[in-house]
Amino acid sequence: MFRLYYAPGTCTLATHIALEEAGVPYEAVPDFGSQAQRSPEYLAINPKGRVPALVTESGTLTETPGLLFFVAQRFPKAELAPLSDPFALAQVQEFNSYLCSTVHVAHAHGRRGARWADDAAAIEAMKRKVPATMTECFELIERKLLKGPWVMGEQYTICDPYLFTIGTWIEGDGVDTTKLPRFMAHRKRMLARPAVQKAMAAEGTQIP
Amino acid sequence: MFRLYYAPGTCTLATHIALEEAGVPYEAVPDFGSQAQRSPEYLAINPKGRVPALVTESGTLTETPGLLFFVAQRFPKAELAPLSDPFALAQVQEFNSYLCSTVHVAHAHGRRGARWADDAAAIEAMKRKVPATMTECFELIERKLLKGPWVMGEQYTICDPYLFTIGTWIEGDGVDTTKLPRFMAHRKRMLARPAVQKAMAAEGTQIP
Repeated sequence: MFRLYYAPGTCTLATHIALEEAGVPYEAVPDFGSQAQRSPEYLAINPKGRVPALVTESGTLTETPGLLFFVAQRFPKAELAPLSDPFALAQVQEFNSYLCSTVHVAHAHGRRGARWADDAAAIEAMKRKVPATMTECFELIERKLLKGPWVMGEQYTICDPYLFTIGTWIEGDGVDTTKLPRFMAHRKRMLARPAVQKAMAAEGTQIP
Repeated sequence: MFRLYYAPGTCTLATHIALEEAGVPYEAVPDFGSQAQRSPEYLAINPKGRVPALVTESGTLTETPGLLFFVAQRFPKAELAPLSDPFALAQVQEFNSYLCSTVHVAHAHGRRGARWADDAAAIEAMKRKVPATMTECFELIERKLLKGPWVMGEQYTICDPYLFTIGTWIEGDGVDTTKLPRFMAHRKRMLARPAVQKAMAAEGTQIP
């Protein structure tokens, strides 16, 4: 059985939702916070010392875009990605790459500034800019990237749980959600899905 | 014909190499530096105002992991990814996600700190940490992620041009390459490939 290492409030929720959508039997290892992520036992599973990690029948995978793509491919009947259309599938990877390399990174400067500077004043300066950078990201998503009703248009894909998950952070990051009606409608559609409800309940996720 | 927007010294080299490896006819739009990336004409092509962007027969794609994946899928005869093995293909995405979300981001703090803080002292503090963060990333690659001879083992994949490209920055980032013999052997193997030579000559890429 698959084993998912997750921590509440992190991007692991995206993979958690995808596993539920695919109807895969899996065991979720809960409350895997920063300290447990640095334990020798976990570093043997994921030498990066981060979550998520998914232990599968073929080995361990990390990095949310890789995990989501694995679930979509490994369980094609769930139709979580346009697997037979190279351009559309690349668009899925494009969107998820943007989330991991730009949006998640912008958010992380509010909590994990010590990754990129040692100086306390610099870490405070990074925190101050988070509302501006996250607003810029979500305005681009609102105006250009979110096709509607789902990220890629009519088909629900692995982009949707990832956007939803990062979107659970934006009120805390100082983003004005009244300017994001299309994103907020997407959130509402996500909240109505049983797989989302089940993963959120397991992780104890709170929506503002 | 495909059209690639690139800028010398950036991550666009990875896609440039992949197009050469696939033997695709394409036009490269050169010297597309920061100023041109913010022009109204280019923002209509890529609203993110960054390179790379690839204009294809189906539309425009951005984000290096998405572009590389598109080239691998669209030109399967080039065998640039293990397309028929879901786990191995997810490992390719896992590695490329790590490069875009962690390694490229660590490097960018040396040159693009203004993305994450407005304060000049904070931007200087970010620069100071780049040698440590990039060394940590490349030590993980050296010890754990680079299987050898290619990133994924025996098969050359879209992970290789991406690692090679980001690797062209590491001497400038203060990484001690004498501690990275496996990575340096990978670089040497890459430099021997005609596709790499051709893309580097087109972009004017310099290796230390």
